[in-house]
Amino acid sequence: KYFKITTKLQIQFVEDKQEFSRFPTKTGRRSLSRSISQSSTDSYSSAASYTDSSDDETSPRDKTQVNSKGGTDFCVKNIKQAEFGRREIEIAEQDMSALISLRKRAQSEKPLAGAKIVGCTHITAQTAVLIETLVALGAQCRWTACNIYSTQNEVAAALTETGVAVFAWKGESEDDFWWCIDRCVTTEGWQPNMILDDGGDLTHWMYKKYPNVFKKIRGIVEESVTGVHRLYQLSKAGKLCVPAMNVNDSVTKQKFDNLYCCRESILDGLKRTTDVMFGGKQVVVCGYGEVGKGCCAALKALGAIVYVTEIDPICALQACMDGFRVVKLNEVIRLVDIIITCTGNKNVVTRDQLDRMKNGSIVCNMGHSNTEIDVASLRTPELTWERVRSQVDHVIWPDGKRVILLAEGRLLNLSCSTVPTFVLSITATTQALALIELYNAPEGRYKQDVYLLPKKMDEYVASLHLATFDAHLTELSDEQAKYLGLNKNGPFKPNYYRYKPRS
Amino acid sequence: KYFKITTKLQIQFVEDKQEFSRFPTKTGRRSLSRSISQSSTDSYSSAASYTDSSDDETSPRDKTQVNSKGGTDFCVKNIKQAEFGRREIEIAEQDMSALISLRKRAQSEKPLAGAKIVGCTHITAQTAVLIETLVALGAQCRWTACNIYSTQNEVAAALTETGVAVFAWKGESEDDFWWCIDRCVTTEGWQPNMILDDGGDLTHWMYKKYPNVFKKIRGIVEESVTGVHRLYQLSKAGKLCVPAMNVNDSVTKQKFDNLYCCRESILDGLKRTTDVMFGGKQVVVCGYGEVGKGCCAALKALGAIVYVTEIDPICALQACMDGFRVVKLNEVIRLVDIIITCTGNKNVVTRDQLDRMKNGSIVCNMGHSNTEIDVASLRTPELTWERVRSQVDHVIWPDGKRVILLAEGRLLNLSCSTVPTFVLSITATTQALALIELYNAPEGRYKQDVYLLPKKMDEYVASLHLATFDAHLTELSDEQAKYLGLNKNGPFKPNYYRYKPRS
Amino acid sequence: KYFKITTKLQIQFVEDKQEFSRFPTKTGRRSLSRSISQSSTDSYSSAASYTDSSDDETSPRDKTQVNSKGGTDFCVKNIKQAEFGRREIEIAEQDMSALISLRKRAQSEKPLAGAKIVGCTHITAQTAVLIETLVALGAQCRWTACNIYSTQNEVAAALTETGVAVFAWKGESEDDFWWCIDRCVTTEGWQPNMILDDGGDLTHWMYKKYPNVFKKIRGIVEESVTGVHRLYQLSKAGKLCVPAMNVNDSVTKQKFDNLYCCRESILDGLKRTTDVMFGGKQVVVCGYGEVGKGCCAALKALGAIVYVTEIDPICALQACMDGFRVVKLNEVIRLVDIIITCTGNKNVVTRDQLDRMKNGSIVCNMGHSNTEIDVASLRTPELTWERVRSQVDHVIWPDGKRVILLAEGRLLNLSCSTVPTFVLSITATTQALALIELYNAPEGRYKQDVYLLPKKMDEYVASLHLATFDAHLTELSDEQAKYLGLNKNGPFKPNYYRYKPRS
Amino acid sequence: KYFKITTKLQIQFVEDKQEFSRFPTKTGRRSLSRSISQSSTDSYSSAASYTDSSDDETSPRDKTQVNSKGGTDFCVKNIKQAEFGRREIEIAEQDMSALISLRKRAQSEKPLAGAKIVGCTHITAQTAVLIETLVALGAQCRWTACNIYSTQNEVAAALTETGVAVFAWKGESEDDFWWCIDRCVTTEGWQPNMILDDGGDLTHWMYKKYPNVFKKIRGIVEESVTGVHRLYQLSKAGKLCVPAMNVNDSVTKQKFDNLYCCRESILDGLKRTTDVMFGGKQVVVCGYGEVGKGCCAALKALGAIVYVTEIDPICALQACMDGFRVVKLNEVIRLVDIIITCTGNKNVVTRDQLDRMKNGSIVCNMGHSNTEIDVASLRTPELTWERVRSQVDHVIWPDGKRVILLAEGRLLNLSCSTVPTFVLSITATTQALALIELYNAPEGRYKQDVYLLPKKMDEYVASLHLATFDAHLTELSDEQAKYLGLNKNGPFKPNYYRYKPRS
Repeated sequence: KYFKITTKLQIQFVEDKQEFSRFPTKTGRRSLSRSISQSSTDSYSSAASYTDSSDDETSPRDKTQVNSKGGTDFCVKNIKQAEFGRREIEIAEQDMSALISLRKRAQSEKPLAGAKIVGCTHITAQTAVLIETLVALGAQCRWTACNIYSTQNEVAAALTETGVAVFAWKGESEDDFWWCIDRCVTTEGWQPNMILDDGGDLTHWMYKKYPNVFKKIRGIVEESVTGVHRLYQLSKAGKLCVPAMNVNDSVTKQKFDNLYCCRESILDGLKRTTDVMFGGKQVVVCGYGEVGKGCCAALKALGAIVYVTEIDPICALQACMDGFRVVKLNEVIRLVDIIITCTGNKNVVTRDQLDRMKNGSIVCNMGHSNTEIDVASLRTPELTWERVRSQVDHVIWPDGKRVILLAEGRLLNLSCSTVPTFVLSITATTQALALIELYNAPEGRYKQDVYLLPKKMDEYVASLHLATFDAHLTELSDEQAKYLGLNKNGPFKPNYYRYKPRS
Repeated sequence: KYFKITTKLQIQFVEDKQEFSRFPTKTGRRSLSRSISQSSTDSYSSAASYTDSSDDETSPRDKTQVNSKGGTDFCVKNIKQAEFGRREIEIAEQDMSALISLRKRAQSEKPLAGAKIVGCTHITAQTAVLIETLVALGAQCRWTACNIYSTQNEVAAALTETGVAVFAWKGESEDDFWWCIDRCVTTEGWQPNMILDDGGDLTHWMYKKYPNVFKKIRGIVEESVTGVHRLYQLSKAGKLCVPAMNVNDSVTKQKFDNLYCCRESILDGLKRTTDVMFGGKQVVVCGYGEVGKGCCAALKALGAIVYVTEIDPICALQACMDGFRVVKLNEVIRLVDIIITCTGNKNVVTRDQLDRMKNGSIVCNMGHSNTEIDVASLRTPELTWERVRSQVDHVIWPDGKRVILLAEGRLLNLSCSTVPTFVLSITATTQALALIELYNAPEGRYKQDVYLLPKKMDEYVASLHLATFDAHLTELSDEQAKYLGLNKNGPFKPNYYRYKPRS
Repeated sequence: KYFKITTKLQIQFVEDKQEFSRFPTKTGRRSLSRSISQSSTDSYSSAASYTDSSDDETSPRDKTQVNSKGGTDFCVKNIKQAEFGRREIEIAEQDMSALISLRKRAQSEKPLAGAKIVGCTHITAQTAVLIETLVALGAQCRWTACNIYSTQNEVAAALTETGVAVFAWKGESEDDFWWCIDRCVTTEGWQPNMILDDGGDLTHWMYKKYPNVFKKIRGIVEESVTGVHRLYQLSKAGKLCVPAMNVNDSVTKQKFDNLYCCRESILDGLKRTTDVMFGGKQVVVCGYGEVGKGCCAALKALGAIVYVTEIDPICALQACMDGFRVVKLNEVIRLVDIIITCTGNKNVVTRDQLDRMKNGSIVCNMGHSNTEIDVASLRTPELTWERVRSQVDHVIWPDGKRVILLAEGRLLNLSCSTVPTFVLSITATTQALALIELYNAPEGRYKQDVYLLPKKMDEYVASLHLATFDAHLTELSDEQAKYLGLNKNGPFKPNYYRYKPRS
Repeated sequence: KYFKITTKLQIQFVEDKQEFSRFPTKTGRRSLSRSISQSSTDSYSSAASYTDSSDDETSPRDKTQVNSKGGTDFCVKNIKQAEFGRREIEIAEQDMSALISLRKRAQSEKPLAGAKIVGCTHITAQTAVLIETLVALGAQCRWTACNIYSTQNEVAAALTETGVAVFAWKGESEDDFWWCIDRCVTTEGWQPNMILDDGGDLTHWMYKKYPNVFKKIRGIVEESVTGVHRLYQLSKAGKLCVPAMNVNDSVTKQKFDNLYCCRESILDGLKRTTDVMFGGKQVVVCGYGEVGKGCCAALKALGAIVYVTEIDPICALQACMDGFRVVKLNEVIRLVDIIITCTGNKNVVTRDQLDRMKNGSIVCNMGHSNTEIDVASLRTPELTWERVRSQVDHVIWPDGKRVILLAEGRLLNLSCSTVPTFVLSITATTQALALIELYNAPEGRYKQDVYLLPKKMDEYVASLHLATFDAHLTELSDEQAKYLGLNKNGPFKPNYYRYKPRS
């Protein structure tokens, strides 16, 4: 779920009927939203502390910087932070052994030799491990940021030092954003043949601005829900002239982004913001999909009493069997200490319900968008808002009742907790494999369409991560493989078989 | 998993190349297998105690019996047991409120008015509740047993008393089995228009013997893996002239048959057979699909230390995240107190491994077939077998070491524990809805093919069972339904979206 | 909790004002109670199946039997069953490795050489392992049964074959019971110097009948609550002329008899009797002491929704922190599917409350006595009782509502589930150590009083059982022992420090 | 465990043979230790943000401040922060409803009318709620801090505003510390008659400096292990001339300080410092007392694989039954990702073991003192220390291996996580009740000795906290109370019956 908020914002962008070609203007709302979402993450990020907080207000575009090898084909905040960034990357490498292992395995055969990859993703220490892996496998890379606030400046500097052409810094303007993408794509004597995108901005810029370059791309790897959605729309319209791979829906990524990651981040997010004691608390979790299942499991395990609301009887029945009472929110609204929304729906918690909550109760959102709690309805004159900590507001009713609202209803796990490097490693490894697959696929294997990650590669990503747990796979004997009708090396499940959220 | 053993036996039947037309002869192996599997179930069945154990050896086919209304169109063990059977049915009704509720809701509109259903299933108190529901909805029913040992005689008698034409008793010969099916299908002035089958025997008998009747059937509802497999083969061969519905793969049924049911039956089966204390035991579970997940969860919860073996890295990664060490069997074979197989594979536990197990360790199977443990390899002269209880053998090595083998490697949950009525209620309700759907579907909705249960009906089955848990569904507001792009009454997930085992 | 029911019955015996000296007469009620309690256990006992069910009605007292060595100093049902009994003992030995280990360690030094032990306990395979251990350590033993129904005849026969003088059989009359005790104590040329008792009957018989022999006893080891209570009363009255050891209250025994054992037996008892599915069931557990904690933990782990009632705010607060709603029974009585009493109190579930329970709900007792549920109030004309299985009654209200009552309100875990051999091993090892301690203690260490098991011995019993789990203790370094002020070999806690039930 | 670190430091103080009368000199070590312990807590404290960070370096002792009522009998950092402090107190009140409820119940009868209480504790918002409760019940209070760094200046200011004479600020010197105590005790026309102490410094100051005042004290309530230890020593020496109550060992406080609090803080402390993902991690917990039990339960619940080391076989056996492998540390040292010490012992993790740990593994301490991990052994030239965040050091071996050391081996839960207000509420309520009891006890109930909190009052504290959980106690009927031999209002357990750590 790490990148979903970006995603959602972009969906709104589309819904706002803003034409792609009009982006340089009227993008105020978008950058504002980004600002809000990202700044919340920062407050808990370990890396944030390394970011230069000097009062250097000069725009990187106006500076001239040279790396230690004399190169100037980049634009970052401050090349001098490279050493700090290197340490961050080294720390990240410790938890990304799958990627390092891939680097080692594939290094001699250089499967990306000749690949010219242009990338547009969050630029963090984890991404740097990915980029440096791509380079080790033979690729040339140019990179830009998919979010104007998420760049770790010192990591960008460190990448730049090693010769990767990075155009990104924390706090870009909207204009900077597109300028960076443009500089990334176009440079003399270099033309990209692969795209790694997160959100689809890079893809669409190239599609619109450089159609001739775009046509020669061998493959696109897209990370986000929105980007994938845009690709499917292009494909449906018959305009997608390049094979693309949807890595968002790989089983491994989905399970980790939702069930396992939320199981940990719900506790972390609540604790860091409110220091609440979980034991004995009454909690209602709205929605029993993967996110809801993760939240419920963690809270129950720590001694909370958990209620579930659901609209889908199949999910509801699972909640029953897992030991949760399935109720309507109104049945327990006066009772509960904490409400957590995990629905993807809107107005799941209404003003009317907030009016009836207990003094001191907590409301937060782990779901898809920031509309699950009707926060807007709380911005009325009779209610007082008191910011008691970063990401924590007390909303105070006229009778003195306080409701504790976290992250103003935005995603708690993005705003108030961190994402383990291990989860990002799964994403990055999947991206690397998808690039290798598309780049090396024989003519005809992929047409001008959007593809899911082949099951076998999904399994391969998983297998690379087993070493972290010192887990040992069992191998089929020939006889067993025959009995089961499987290849000994997988895939062990058919391609159509994949994770589906919420059942 | 209740009906899987039948399934497996029938798969062997097919593999044995026994032609359908040759069934009256050479069926010894089949009935033997059935005998073994079923007798094991009986030893723990509550209903078993009501079965007449008198020494009445007369074949029901040689008796003349008349029910209290003077009817004679049936053939059961002893019509006088009807009263006992009625009590069993009444007890079953208490845990099948979903079916009773369906009965009440649909009774006035009689959606099965005119339906002439011929059925071939296990004949138990739970099935009786289904049949009487079908009758209440307007159908005429004739019924026979899909298994020569599973009939509860007193229930058959009770059904007969109410006018259902039942042809079945516990302990049929193979010849009896087909005679009963034939009597069920053919009676003067009555021709079936719907089939409810479990295993495909009835369907194939009609297809082969009464092709003209078969062509006029409006729909087939098939319960078992094997029966569904046979239907798909017919369909593939272009010979299926009737729409058929595969109810085996409905989400609700699958989750309950595997994850939830096994979570309870692994404990029950081990305890009833060995009185083993779970706390502190070291257990290895082979396979981390739904069945394995259920076993692991239950054993961990009761204080066992659980290891997992897996061939699929995706399942293995899930096991890691759920807190289980993933090992090769050989790593822990000398360590563990209990081995449980849940793979669907063969020779997962070999003689070589059994040789290395600890004295007093337990081996059992919760998976698909009876080949997971290489039991055959234990039938050698140097090993002594000692039957210490029903379903429990001590296999004794020359040095005195004992390994405790349960159910001779057949399915523990079928052999040594019972299936909750609630799980059977889900199956029965699904069957009833599928019959109503096929019988009432407008021309053209279903062609001559095999269909999965529509998502909406799967959800409806689930919703009918929520009352048992006093669970209350949340309803979407109009605004929310529009936002999500859903109909307020469901389906809440697309049709293609369904439960897939083992990931 | 295994022996508590005996205990309770004897408490009633005392309350009935039956004088000790009057026991041969008017004991009808007692034997009846025993009969009921014990027969219930039998139905689920593995060993029961080996018991001779021949129609040999001759009283053992009227038979002349000779063992294979020509001995006749015993009285059992049938000496010919010895071989079957030996197998039972061998199976028990497999789970009693702590005792076998003690046997091996102490065998060369024969710490019980010269000890003449008279014992009165349940005579089961597990007891036989204890007795044969005592013999291996040098003791001479004569044994009788503390319960008229619990003797495994084939085990008694096997013991007799090895030369132990056993006087016991299943189904003794009250007169037989005391005759056996008397025969056990008195034989020419042999006078006991140690007593191992369970319930205090043997002790009191000797105290009353053979005061001169009694005075010379070196020590008494008493197992049961009642027996201990009687000893304390004797001591208080200044009449206890022998040191006695209360092994009932050892930490190890208590934890296993209550928390750990009940955690498993609640599931087993419910499943064997009702086949109930635990997932999603609403359960109220009355009392949150160790027994209640065990029941709650197990049921929650399997997906039940559990409520707790408590009178003690400290236990109630623990229930809250462990994730259970603490309610008054009346708040949930109409809601719950299962009521389980674990209070030691009386009339915890009243007729009024039973009147309000749901159709199909289950009521059972895991607590101390059979008075927790007011079963007597259900024996009224307007209610119909229907026995549906052994230990399972449907109580039917005039409107057709059924409440399922288990074991007629007696202890579910004694009546409807089995006790793991491992738990009995802890008890037996404790008894053996207590006998060794009392027999070998230097003059003056124990006076004429009742003693708790020394902490160090409690720890030793625990340590002997760790091997079962392949658990490895850490040893203190000299430096660490000094830092903590402990002896490296324990005790690691002071003597006064011990397990206390219910907090 | 909140106050244990103070405790430990004071024990060292005593061990250092520093005479009480020599305190103004040579106190460097003490204040340094305090500084370290407290500053670590601050970094995660919500309240820290309100503390004035202005560069006002003037000592409060040199300032003249007047509160809004014209009072000057106090000494705090800045009276102008009172409003901020009031808000903090109000927020704390929300989670301390037990104390508020006590305030309301006892307010009309003013049980502390005439009490003149001098207190020496941490001065936080939670303490303020306690003090204001004492005042509401009729007491006059003067207060000082037991720790030179723990005072929340704004809270001290707020208390001062209401008329409580507070002498404390964050960052006192050792000289300030004793000056404040002295000012607190002595003021014209006022002489204390009750003491509330945490650590024993106030008590000993009065005992030494003002023996005549001390003799007239009606009672002392002492919170900490050290303070209690000092009192017992005084008592043993026959010098304690005042009744004292040990509130440290109340059941309720102990359970919350250890088991329940650590269950939550282990996750919080690890996550805030390292962002580690718990799922699949291999963890070894050294020690299975209450703290260890809490850590193990939480980590297992979130998918970690947990090993336990123990020296005590009884605790080890419990670990087995709870599903943990009991090992020696050396067996798993190369395997584990995280080591957590909970023993109270020293050098539980040695340099030799640290040498063998995996790259990237984490080491931390939840136990009693800072000696459990041999941190000193890591301060050698060949190892590099890198501070990567507050409380987080990477210790780097020559081969590049990094071990992550948290809080330099001090208590993780004090250094890196917060204590829920609810837990502090239990402590504060216990203190208030103990004061009321001692102040109102009839002559002769308490002699010149140290007393445990009466069982009934322990139960009362628990009962006051049940409201937080909306928990409803069951009341005994007269008949039941008689049957159990209990008073209907408790105590429900005997006085000698109390919680004992670690079994």
